[in-house]
Amino acid sequence: MATVPSVSNSITVRLEVPARGNAVSAITTAVESSGGSVTGLDVTASGLEALRIDVTVAAASVAHGEEIVEKLRAIDGVSIGKVSDRTFLMHLGGKIEMSSKLPIRNRDDLSMIYTPGVARVCMAIAENPEDARRLTIKRNSVAVVTDGSAVLGLGNIGPAAALPVMEGKAALFKRFAGIDAWPICLDTQDTDEIVAIVKAIAPGFAGINLEDISAPRCFEIEARLREALDIPVFHDDQHGTAIVVLAALTNALKVVGKEISDIRVVMSGAGAAGTAILKLLMAAGVEHATVADVRGVVHQGRDDLNDNLRWIADHTNRSGRTGSLKEAVADADVFIGVSAPNVLDGDDLATMADNAIVFALANPDPEVDPAIARQTAAVVATGRSDFPNQINNVLVFPGVFRGLLDAQSRTVNTEMMIAAARALATTVADDELNANYIIPSVFHKDVAKTVAAAVREAALAGAQSAPAPARPTPGIVGTLDTASFPTVKL
Amino acid sequence: MATVPSVSNSITVRLEVPARGNAVSAITTAVESSGGSVTGLDVTASGLEALRIDVTVAAASVAHGEEIVEKLRAIDGVSIGKVSDRTFLMHLGGKIEMSSKLPIRNRDDLSMIYTPGVARVCMAIAENPEDARRLTIKRNSVAVVTDGSAVLGLGNIGPAAALPVMEGKAALFKRFAGIDAWPICLDTQDTDEIVAIVKAIAPGFAGINLEDISAPRCFEIEARLREALDIPVFHDDQHGTAIVVLAALTNALKVVGKEISDIRVVMSGAGAAGTAILKLLMAAGVEHATVADVRGVVHQGRDDLNDNLRWIADHTNRSGRTGSLKEAVADADVFIGVSAPNVLDGDDLATMADNAIVFALANPDPEVDPAIARQTAAVVATGRSDFPNQINNVLVFPGVFRGLLDAQSRTVNTEMMIAAARALATTVADDELNANYIIPSVFHKDVAKTVAAAVREAALAGAQSAPAPARPTPGIVGTLDTASFPTVKL
Repeated sequence: MATVPSVSNSITVRLEVPARGNAVSAITTAVESSGGSVTGLDVTASGLEALRIDVTVAAASVAHGEEIVEKLRAIDGVSIGKVSDRTFLMHLGGKIEMSSKLPIRNRDDLSMIYTPGVARVCMAIAENPEDARRLTIKRNSVAVVTDGSAVLGLGNIGPAAALPVMEGKAALFKRFAGIDAWPICLDTQDTDEIVAIVKAIAPGFAGINLEDISAPRCFEIEARLREALDIPVFHDDQHGTAIVVLAALTNALKVVGKEISDIRVVMSGAGAAGTAILKLLMAAGVEHATVADVRGVVHQGRDDLNDNLRWIADHTNRSGRTGSLKEAVADADVFIGVSAPNVLDGDDLATMADNAIVFALANPDPEVDPAIARQTAAVVATGRSDFPNQINNVLVFPGVFRGLLDAQSRTVNTEMMIAAARALATTVADDELNANYIIPSVFHKDVAKTVAAAVREAALAGAQSAPAPARPTPGIVGTLDTASFPTVKL
Repeated sequence: MATVPSVSNSITVRLEVPARGNAVSAITTAVESSGGSVTGLDVTASGLEALRIDVTVAAASVAHGEEIVEKLRAIDGVSIGKVSDRTFLMHLGGKIEMSSKLPIRNRDDLSMIYTPGVARVCMAIAENPEDARRLTIKRNSVAVVTDGSAVLGLGNIGPAAALPVMEGKAALFKRFAGIDAWPICLDTQDTDEIVAIVKAIAPGFAGINLEDISAPRCFEIEARLREALDIPVFHDDQHGTAIVVLAALTNALKVVGKEISDIRVVMSGAGAAGTAILKLLMAAGVEHATVADVRGVVHQGRDDLNDNLRWIADHTNRSGRTGSLKEAVADADVFIGVSAPNVLDGDDLATMADNAIVFALANPDPEVDPAIARQTAAVVATGRSDFPNQINNVLVFPGVFRGLLDAQSRTVNTEMMIAAARALATTVADDELNANYIIPSVFHKDVAKTVAAAVREAALAGAQSAPAPARPTPGIVGTLDTASFPTVKL
């Protein structure tokens, strides 16, 4: 798969060119003949002799950007000034900030926001700790916690290098769901320590979003935190992915006219995401699943099963298959890959059942070339933004947490996740649904609120949810009409 | 000391009053005859028969507010609607929020702020971890860490109840120094655990502000964290207080015409703040200090000395005094109290040297009534906002951290603290300086920047400061002029 020019690899080049002649048109020609794309061209200074031009170019990679600069440098009369990388410029100084919601203009403001007034608010919370959910940022805050052990596809790059991803996640939480998230990047990869730390920092947050923690530690960390904490703990790499996959599969099955209980699903990948997808699909009605990892189909006869693989072997593969992934996909209705590039080819997909569904989610290079997959499969989805049907967690985590926070939920469970997936699926209307549109854009305006409403409802309905009983907001003397309170900014 | 009406105890009362007659003037009369103060009166609805009025009243306490409401209820024809507490209203939903500095409008924005573009920024930091200080929020962020063990004067109220103070602190960091601080309220009071947790969360922050952690644990926690971390660790209750006291003392000595090396200082209190003040004053030139705690003067002959008191006994009280605080203050030039209300009276102060300086900092009730102190002492300061010369940490911590962050300092030391105190003292010009103005208002516009500049300079000059060597910002191909980068919002 050739990589196309992308703004994520765009550079801005400052050039000086002669005022006369065809240098300006030569710039565009040079960029385009190099396979780049001019996305902006500003004359930032103009004189009798020369022009200063800032040209912004989308390149396919850093090396490609350097090639383009050299092509520009070769234009007669052009001199190259500074060359800057737009993505890095956007990151200078960080992407997020902390703001005060209240002005601090004078001593009166200070006396209510800080001492002495704040002491009465503290004492109200000391008397009733649940009031922290009304009177503090805990009402609307999520910790985005990572140990930097499995960041994107980059591997174990550590907590500092993970920070740009966690800041981006926090920015997305705010953009799509009005949630105040803060990145917590941990300088330890010890399971016990991570559990102890997240337990300890929990009082200031209404939810924990675990992020980019490698398997199998992520399973234990999540399970122990869920047990210990009275706020929801959600490992987005597992459950966010699983929810989007279930939503996309729900709609893909409508497109091909199959029922979830009838289909045979073959999965490639038994890591964090794969296991979570498997479990959620089974909870939602999938009865026939087979999972393969790098050593082939997971079955009870294998002698290399850890706890997670043992669970998979015990709960999948009813027909008792062994052998390779390539063998397993024969006659399958659905292939879901969360593993590695190019583990299947067109010939393999040709052995699948009619109207096959292929979700090849490895990034940036899918398990099978989506262009080839489309030749035999009825519906194809990937994790990439440059193909139709992108399976993107951004569709899920903001709405899920918005719903959990609005319900003051103390947990997140399978019922809530299925509700989230079904709600997400409904944002594609029946008359919009087709093989190239089984899942909406992340910018679809209804996504987060639809998901949030479904999760909130499921949380309030669930036995494990225990919202605080209604009681008057503290610090109020006399009668009170909370409906007329100033609207609190979310 | 009678408590006066304060906005920090203000309530807004909604009333309906007859449109005719003198009910409106009766409202004001009722409030003022009850000792309250009307700070706002809005007619929010008006009809032929009745008016709806929201009256905002400053009361001296919650109980006083309730009394005032009852007085209003007794006015003929008035009916009381909702009564709300302004301080609590301001706290609803929390005082701070997280914001994205960049818009996320479309897929292009997403591809640079988040995947795939963010991956290149992550890899740049993985290759050179120092770049986290350029390309992430770490550049400008401080963790405000507490275990809730010694919150204001409220005691051990725990992490959730401490959150309003920590949010207020974060808001002040932003207001006065443009710093992005986030509250971390820990659900543990175990020294080893706190040290381990703060070490682990450090990668995402450029500084740690410890807050409201009780003595003696705060000494060990701070010392171990300073040893372990490559970012500054500052316990504001200790050092923030010490710096303001040193600044105020510097100016008070100018007022009375005494030299720091000549004065005899007597302190009441050997806790976190007291010990830090003592050490900073000694580092700044105080040679004659005597400290008393609840058991009287700290001296080498006492059999109850812990490590901290032993250090004090070994380094103070050259004249070998024993006995009570009241005995110790005789002939002292300076009294500094960070202990308990009303441990001294006017007769005690009358035994001090001529031109005595009294800093009675216990809050809300000082060690000696400041009105009485002013009868004998030349200069009096308190921690209260309703007397001149308020010793307020807000004068210090924003500027100190701004300076540390700007210098990318890896530590904070005594030299930097003395520089901060001297800089703060200079914000009171010689022609402004007098016994009632030894320290500026927290809203004085020059305070934070003056303190920041002094700390930055001391940090860059100090041997322990090791700013990253100059190198090009990563991700730039070709020549680069960083001076023309877009200004990064602090």
